[in-house]
Amino acid sequence: MTGVRVPAQLGPGEEFDRIRAIWGRLGDRVAGAGEDCAFLEIGGERLAFSVDLSTEGTHFQIGWMTPVEIGWRAASAALSDLAAVAADPLGVLASVGVPAEWPAEHVTDLMEGVGAAAAAVGARVWGGDLVRAACVILDVCVVGRLAAAPVLRSGAKPGDELWVTGRLGGPFAALAAWNARAEPDRAARERFVHPVPRVREGHWLRDHGARALIDLSDGLVPDAGHLAAASHVGWTIDVDAVPLHPSAETADMALAGGEEYELLAAFPPGLDDNDAVEFAARFGIPLTRVGRADQAQGVRLLRDETRVWVPESYRHF
Amino acid sequence: MTGVRVPAQLGPGEEFDRIRAIWGRLGDRVAGAGEDCAFLEIGGERLAFSVDLSTEGTHFQIGWMTPVEIGWRAASAALSDLAAVAADPLGVLASVGVPAEWPAEHVTDLMEGVGAAAAAVGARVWGGDLVRAACVILDVCVVGRLAAAPVLRSGAKPGDELWVTGRLGGPFAALAAWNARAEPDRAARERFVHPVPRVREGHWLRDHGARALIDLSDGLVPDAGHLAAASHVGWTIDVDAVPLHPSAETADMALAGGEEYELLAAFPPGLDDNDAVEFAARFGIPLTRVGRADQAQGVRLLRDETRVWVPESYRHF
Repeated sequence: MTGVRVPAQLGPGEEFDRIRAIWGRLGDRVAGAGEDCAFLEIGGERLAFSVDLSTEGTHFQIGWMTPVEIGWRAASAALSDLAAVAADPLGVLASVGVPAEWPAEHVTDLMEGVGAAAAAVGARVWGGDLVRAACVILDVCVVGRLAAAPVLRSGAKPGDELWVTGRLGGPFAALAAWNARAEPDRAARERFVHPVPRVREGHWLRDHGARALIDLSDGLVPDAGHLAAASHVGWTIDVDAVPLHPSAETADMALAGGEEYELLAAFPPGLDDNDAVEFAARFGIPLTRVGRADQAQGVRLLRDETRVWVPESYRHF
Repeated sequence: MTGVRVPAQLGPGEEFDRIRAIWGRLGDRVAGAGEDCAFLEIGGERLAFSVDLSTEGTHFQIGWMTPVEIGWRAASAALSDLAAVAADPLGVLASVGVPAEWPAEHVTDLMEGVGAAAAAVGARVWGGDLVRAACVILDVCVVGRLAAAPVLRSGAKPGDELWVTGRLGGPFAALAAWNARAEPDRAARERFVHPVPRVREGHWLRDHGARALIDLSDGLVPDAGHLAAASHVGWTIDVDAVPLHPSAETADMALAGGEEYELLAAFPPGLDDNDAVEFAARFGIPLTRVGRADQAQGVRLLRDETRVWVPESYRHF
């Protein structure tokens, strides 16, 4: 799998332009980037790796969450990348930076959250690093094992249907409340501080024939954009079909909000409502058809068969 | 190797007390921590993993180094952990955080440094993460393959001799200059900005019978302390035997300075000056006997057979 020379293509946006510039400069010193995970075939086994960096001020503010929640959330964000290739989590390494004045007990709490998130999906904490820093930093590296070929971002074909797990917009609703200096409602807050990597759900999607898969970290529209770019297709998404979290006041919250850690999958036509009912019964969250692939590039949104603007998502740069 | 339940013991210091507290809280959610790397046996192969977090303000100031140098240095620090278990580097994943106002070109430069450090030891860049942050952050996760059992911190025995690669004190001399608002001399600066992970040297040490190994990231005395704690021995170090970098003005710079990324190895008696000459001829750096293990715990420094105080090393907390 390392041996793949050309990184998978990413969707539009300046932060992804920066990543494209890095790949351009590094040339063949890069191997197989652009998917949710990096892969290694060794000894007849396949492993998957990913890293996910969370920093105070960008991903969260200290007052929003307890240290245990900060740890859970950062680890789950990284573990979600393993879910997105249908890998089984094995271990996590956590690099932690905290200000000197942060109580030692908070660092232990933070790592308790990391350990709990890892244990919840069958992984353990293998190690890490701990340093002093100007703000709270938590970078989590995850290692998983693949029982079958990974489901990549690049497998979708024209005619495929786009399905999403869960209900979207909860994390955006929580952020909107905090940014308005209010306290989010309990359900929205829970979606933000306690995301659950969809590991078993990812296996189900693979076993039911998913051809391409990505986890929703940037948001439904930008992540559909990555799936489109990697697969050389375009998506037309039916805005009214997108399942809204009860706390999401507008469809835009579900379209543009990031850090959902739900899964977005491309299936050939055939997966149906009965499958969705079985999925919901098994996992307690819906599986919903939201769009279809065509030859055009990019992502289009339709409402009542009329094209609507794509709302702006969070931009790091 | 994951299956090892009890983390290897660390030396004294508050930052290591914090790590001990984390292990205590996590219990059996931790597997095999406390060595330079985490290990995984899979498909008849052995892999090694490590992470190393570098942050502006703690590990470096922006004015000291170019972005390419920041990238090289952070990646080499992480790759040094693979050298310290005699693993062959395969891949790196780099999480990058930079302020919004940092030029995009600098991010590419930074990753060029990461890619060059990886390529220099036969590894490639597998992926990473890029986010906005309040300061420059670079966390590097490394993956290596072991051709034989890893050399751990815990294998030293009473009577063993302590050997160190290279000449010490250069990075401390560079830091001392910058902290005095002066420019370090070229040789000291080079040691700081362009450390070379001792990968081939680590293989030589393993092949010549090293029983325990660690890389010098915290400093000679604290890292000897980790080797002592993990192996349940003590070390008596002959201060006058410690090889000084030409820029190091005092022995304390070599004893207490961190971020050397040289290797410290425990050998049973028998490795001799001829071996050291062969090592120096092959690698262009010295290999020097600096101490001996006994039953007592901790690290003692002798000068002219008189015990001297241990200088204070950098403390994150």
